[in-house]
Amino acid sequence: MSQDSQFHLNAFLMGVGHHEAAWRHPRTEAHRVLDVAHFQELGRIAERGKLDSVFFADGLAVGPRIKHNTQAIFEPVTLLSAIAVATEHVGLIATASTSYSDPYNLARKFTSLDHISGGRAGWNIVTSAGADEAANFGVDGIPAHSGRYERAEEFVDVTLALWDSWEDGAVVLDPETGVFADPGKVHTIDHDGPRFRVKGPLNSPRSAQGRPLLVQAGSSESGKEFAARYAEAVFTAQRTLEQGQEFYRDLEARVVKHGRNAGDLKVLPGIVPFIADTEEEAKALEQSFTDLISPEYSLRQLSTMLGVDLTKHSLDAPLPPLPPLDEIQGNKSRYQLVKDLAADGSLTVRQLIGLLGGGRGHRTFAGTPEQVADELQTWFEQGAADGFNIMPPYLPGGLDDFVDRVVPILQQRGLFRTEYTATTLRGHYGLTDVGNRFAGAVDEASA
Amino acid sequence: MSQDSQFHLNAFLMGVGHHEAAWRHPRTEAHRVLDVAHFQELGRIAERGKLDSVFFADGLAVGPRIKHNTQAIFEPVTLLSAIAVATEHVGLIATASTSYSDPYNLARKFTSLDHISGGRAGWNIVTSAGADEAANFGVDGIPAHSGRYERAEEFVDVTLALWDSWEDGAVVLDPETGVFADPGKVHTIDHDGPRFRVKGPLNSPRSAQGRPLLVQAGSSESGKEFAARYAEAVFTAQRTLEQGQEFYRDLEARVVKHGRNAGDLKVLPGIVPFIADTEEEAKALEQSFTDLISPEYSLRQLSTMLGVDLTKHSLDAPLPPLPPLDEIQGNKSRYQLVKDLAADGSLTVRQLIGLLGGGRGHRTFAGTPEQVADELQTWFEQGAADGFNIMPPYLPGGLDDFVDRVVPILQQRGLFRTEYTATTLRGHYGLTDVGNRFAGAVDEASA
Ligand SMILES: Cc1cc2nc3c(=O)[nH]c(=O)nc-3n(C[C@H](O)[C@H](O)[C@H](O)COP(=O)(O)O)c2cc1C
Ligand SMILES: Cc1cc2nc3c(=O)[nH]c(=O)nc-3n(C[C@H](O)[C@H](O)[C@H](O)COP(=O)(O)O)c2cc1C
Repeated sequence: MSQDSQFHLNAFLMGVGHHEAAWRHPRTEAHRVLDVAHFQELGRIAERGKLDSVFFADGLAVGPRIKHNTQAIFEPVTLLSAIAVATEHVGLIATASTSYSDPYNLARKFTSLDHISGGRAGWNIVTSAGADEAANFGVDGIPAHSGRYERAEEFVDVTLALWDSWEDGAVVLDPETGVFADPGKVHTIDHDGPRFRVKGPLNSPRSAQGRPLLVQAGSSESGKEFAARYAEAVFTAQRTLEQGQEFYRDLEARVVKHGRNAGDLKVLPGIVPFIADTEEEAKALEQSFTDLISPEYSLRQLSTMLGVDLTKHSLDAPLPPLPPLDEIQGNKSRYQLVKDLAADGSLTVRQLIGLLGGGRGHRTFAGTPEQVADELQTWFEQGAADGFNIMPPYLPGGLDDFVDRVVPILQQRGLFRTEYTATTLRGHYGLTDVGNRFAGAVDEASA
Repeated sequence: MSQDSQFHLNAFLMGVGHHEAAWRHPRTEAHRVLDVAHFQELGRIAERGKLDSVFFADGLAVGPRIKHNTQAIFEPVTLLSAIAVATEHVGLIATASTSYSDPYNLARKFTSLDHISGGRAGWNIVTSAGADEAANFGVDGIPAHSGRYERAEEFVDVTLALWDSWEDGAVVLDPETGVFADPGKVHTIDHDGPRFRVKGPLNSPRSAQGRPLLVQAGSSESGKEFAARYAEAVFTAQRTLEQGQEFYRDLEARVVKHGRNAGDLKVLPGIVPFIADTEEEAKALEQSFTDLISPEYSLRQLSTMLGVDLTKHSLDAPLPPLPPLDEIQGNKSRYQLVKDLAADGSLTVRQLIGLLGGGRGHRTFAGTPEQVADELQTWFEQGAADGFNIMPPYLPGGLDDFVDRVVPILQQRGLFRTEYTATTLRGHYGLTDVGNRFAGAVDEASA
């Protein structure tokens, strides 16, 4: 939320593309999902387009989609370390869960990525809604939505404290006196809460950008409150301009309520762009992907999304009645989105699957480079976005097209940077003033 | 333990060198401890020498040595991901703790490194003996030695099962039929033990080498039993040929007792080599490092090693009496080593510190390239080693010297490979036959 004249662009990367049939399409090479060089190339393409960042989602289970799931190969932080050393500027955002890890290890691995990349790391904070994820960590069923967010809050509080535990300038590195760090600038955090007890300090100095950027992508009531309190960027699935504007206003009000400035949080709705010379060609391109969707895969995915088993349901009938939102412990916002789409009962399951196939609920848009640019400009100028989460339906080609054909138009219109002006991810997002609770404090650790 | 005619070499990398004063010495540039490019260069130097692997230690706290500790910067798995993409052959071994992580996340991150590197990942399994580490994970005091090893055993059992959960060939990647993986070759593990319940499968396919190499470095009674049961390589601190032979025979007997072949485990004692044209120059080089040791730092480090506060103790008096071994919950083997050194009461604390400074208890050796090669050959041929853990006192220079001056002599003598003959880390160590408990099994996950 800002009055900035330029917007922000994140490339959400997934295997050989976001479209669920991407890896079956002639525009991709399926085996690349296994190849780290493919992902390094994607990082370099994003950097060629001066994008703010690249981003990887993550989940802690294969899920019921083993047969068709091409995503489960790399862990995002290790993958981004490999991309970090193949790029110089682009930000690197990894998803990690607060439900199945702990603050010390998480703070450490993101700080390590931040050091490897010279201050370009970001953390997409998720609470892991899946029962299949829970079962890999000794938890039965889906942990309650509220408990997950309570844990997430304490988790992030501890992580932020650990990231403050080394002040700027704590590393002295003076061979003459033999002093590596100034112990007066390295602090214990002595956290003692209901879920975590952590003494600190972190075993890694503060990075070039102070600490990683905090990103969030949950749109339920608790998700929005959480984002308003902690997040600096929000990824969100909004299908219409009106919904986007409403979400934007809602989040802005919450941010201010939490005593922050509206500009402290950037809202980035997702878009899956099919780009071609003419609108007809773009629509035909999209259709060529839709034609490759496997109904078996999609029914499983829709079942997971809704928490309702549809695998025996007819493809040509409308959705069965769905339970009320407050009975859903999983991904509430995605559930609501599908429920809204299906509300008037006119869509069959097959049609619904086609609609969702491109971006699993995110907005797809097929058009010329100018039309895509117009669409982004409208959302930005009409108060629905501070930037966009670009979700190429196929990779690397879909990212190439966006970077080489849409970005130059945005640059000509003055809507997007022509060169990087900052060196860190926080800098790209215009969030430089990070502060440190311990700056100047004197505590036991200095003894 | 093997009758191989050639031995194995691992480069144990640490900041700008193993000698505790390395970063104060003119042969190093201290600021490189913060620079990922320095570590990528070390990986390339090791590869130039056809070394089997590089290795990073790790601890989950800064410890009481904040002021002088130059090690605590990068987390090893992220760092090795960055090195993986700058190298082609050399193995990549990272330390990770079984006490403060859990099997699913650990299995996942090592598999990810294995995919990034094309099958070159290894795991040095540690149980984290420090009270300072415990305090970062809500645990008071040092967790009991026996409990740590019990947890380690179940932890490794689960991790191995997760690594087997995808069979070789499970990834089909057939765009025609739309099948990514063959669900009949992806298995749940359904582990239900005293400390962990994990359903599986892992969310990442089997890697090119089947699973990461298992390495261990604890030399206490439980440590040796653990190594004999699980480890494929052991790093160990042995100060004399006789001690090395005794350790080797002891471990060999235990490996056989556990029903394994002697050749399934490689023993690699550590050596800190100071290399120069003449023996005198090499000894003078070592002395120039010893002269830079900060007694304040060393006293703290010795106190941590022994679990006894020596920071107020006179440098010129012998060690105070030490408690019996069975009262030590921390690092038992390192404790015993120092106790042995100090046994006859003739060494002052200052002398002890000088002795330990080079490799924190590991054997230092100063000599010509031929003398270093002779020493390694003797240990190998006299049944004390299957290879060596090379711990350069300063970096990158000390590794350059070993690779460019010692390795060619070993190669001429037929003791070390002149080219890589394998593509994976397991291959370098001659451990190719890894097996998979689930191969051919039919279970529910195939439904
Ligand atoms: C663009 C986008 C990316 C997401 N990426 C992930 C992810 O990688 N892992 C995950 O568990 N959830 C992911 N989510 C889901 C949300 O983070 C959140 O967990 C989910 O919406 C459930 O929370 P809620 O009930 O607050 O909506 C993503 C959502 C969006 C919109
Ligand atoms: C070469 C070498 C490297 C080691 N690296 C680590 C390490 O990185 N992290 C750690 O916690 N312990 C490390 N250790 C210590 C052992 O793994 C082990 O934890 C320690 O010896 C205590 O176990 P013990 O009581 O069985 O001896 C290392 C030991 C040796 C000999």
